[in-house]
Amino acid sequence: MKKTTNSCALAADVGGTNTRMAVVTGEGEILTQSKRPTHCKKGRDEMIKFLVSFSRETIEKSQLPRNEICGIGIGFPGPLNAKSGIVFNPPNLIGWDNVPLKDILEEELKMPVSVENDANSAALGEWWKGVGAGTNSLVCITLGTGIGGGIILDGRVWHGASWIAGEIGHTTIIRDGMNCTCGNKGCLEAYASSRGIIERVNIALSDKRGKGKFQPITELKQLDQLVLQGNEIILNVIKETGVILGIAVANLANLLNPEMVVLFGGVTNLGENLIKPLREEVKKRAFKKATESLRIEVAKLGDNSGILGAAKSIFLKLQS
Amino acid sequence: MKKTTNSCALAADVGGTNTRMAVVTGEGEILTQSKRPTHCKKGRDEMIKFLVSFSRETIEKSQLPRNEICGIGIGFPGPLNAKSGIVFNPPNLIGWDNVPLKDILEEELKMPVSVENDANSAALGEWWKGVGAGTNSLVCITLGTGIGGGIILDGRVWHGASWIAGEIGHTTIIRDGMNCTCGNKGCLEAYASSRGIIERVNIALSDKRGKGKFQPITELKQLDQLVLQGNEIILNVIKETGVILGIAVANLANLLNPEMVVLFGGVTNLGENLIKPLREEVKKRAFKKATESLRIEVAKLGDNSGILGAAKSIFLKLQS
Repeated sequence: MKKTTNSCALAADVGGTNTRMAVVTGEGEILTQSKRPTHCKKGRDEMIKFLVSFSRETIEKSQLPRNEICGIGIGFPGPLNAKSGIVFNPPNLIGWDNVPLKDILEEELKMPVSVENDANSAALGEWWKGVGAGTNSLVCITLGTGIGGGIILDGRVWHGASWIAGEIGHTTIIRDGMNCTCGNKGCLEAYASSRGIIERVNIALSDKRGKGKFQPITELKQLDQLVLQGNEIILNVIKETGVILGIAVANLANLLNPEMVVLFGGVTNLGENLIKPLREEVKKRAFKKATESLRIEVAKLGDNSGILGAAKSIFLKLQS
Repeated sequence: MKKTTNSCALAADVGGTNTRMAVVTGEGEILTQSKRPTHCKKGRDEMIKFLVSFSRETIEKSQLPRNEICGIGIGFPGPLNAKSGIVFNPPNLIGWDNVPLKDILEEELKMPVSVENDANSAALGEWWKGVGAGTNSLVCITLGTGIGGGIILDGRVWHGASWIAGEIGHTTIIRDGMNCTCGNKGCLEAYASSRGIIERVNIALSDKRGKGKFQPITELKQLDQLVLQGNEIILNVIKETGVILGIAVANLANLLNPEMVVLFGGVTNLGENLIKPLREEVKKRAFKKATESLRIEVAKLGDNSGILGAAKSIFLKLQS
């Protein structure tokens, strides 16, 4: 296990299902990493205990002296105040309501802690060591069960006035469109999240074959085989998803004019069937000046973007 | 003529029709101001000569010693690089194509010059001394013949990777909507600019009364009388404009989560008939957390926002 700087961070990518922790050098080298199921079903206190013990264990496993770990960066699945480190009220976690996670962990672990929303962590990771390395501004769109986003401007996460900036999944693309989980209609998420795509595939299959005359799709990866078979219904839904994502990206291009848009998450596995119509729609809709300077890329760090972004968030905090 | 600081700026708000110039103190007090028709019909060189002589004249008129004017801030009607001061290719001006306006004026006037796009200047002005004073982040939407926008984040204009950030008028609101001058369909500008509103009023009147059976509207202020008469057709178009603007503002709220959205320009004269449905639509569509921290206000500096923003842009530049 090689170490190239004196200052390392403990980094955590906390998910609703699994949590990954690693020790990361100041250059972005991952020294030690482990994955554990997140103990979140028994409520907040158990989950915090789990985070504390998993942190201690990961530091120990790294065999680094404690003073070589400058602090802990946490990527957390929910809305939070990245300055105070208070987690607001994550929809998928029990008993979390304005929890001062940063203060609790600093008290327990006796180290500086930085807490960042998971979509922002992924954006930071891709900006630091991924496809966005070297850019000044980047918007990362995480296409999973839902759709999140992280905005990096001048090398800093833009959090907004009440810490919810980046919710590109909940910008309206189709005025009177499909119902979204947020209560709005026609949000990007209602169409281009894996949930939205699966719903639209099943609607399209039902329209074509008749209700009850087909086995509904339940997972995105079931589409792979149908795509290989050249199934037109599926290919059209994927193309339409690309077009809808393209409208959202064109809006971003004209509004924020970022250097890069990074697409992240399981939905990107749909590949060129999704990305090609997306790019075409952006070119059709956005200003030439905005598209010429815009790169649209798929994230390249995979599972590591969250970990690396969490590490970068504590490095940035200690620098400032 | 009172002067409260040692450091003043010459500020210019250059328009396609008129140019206003003023001497502005570091506290935002306007000392001297004049308005002239912009000499833009005879091309670039004549227009630059006009800007130079009008600048000299305004400084003279202020009776301030030259060394009390720290520099010149220009709000200019077109896309430009605010760092290099190069004006790209304003659609409404003849012979302007990559003109190094900042360098030319610095050479002629022997003072530091800052050049800023007019929508950004208006945003800076309202942020500095207008309705947005004291806010950290603000998006200004200028609702005129077209729709422009200026984004202030952490007290700085966000310009984007190729200097065109803020083009909220060219975000798509209605996917397959009305044709926009930019070549896209369904842009905010196609609906909520004065041009868009007039077009939609005439379509609505034509639908109701039959082609050729009414005198088409040509100016926004013609609507005032019809609104007073309680004309339902007109009121519906205005309400619908508010809803469409509301979708754009809700998207901004979820994406950028700014402290304030400032509405600026002639279209805001439609008043509560426009603003009320706008606010309602934002509440309906955006996250509660984003709307609770968002103030939606009409600009209050009127013609002075551009002048004050231009002054602020040179003050900021000289500070940095």
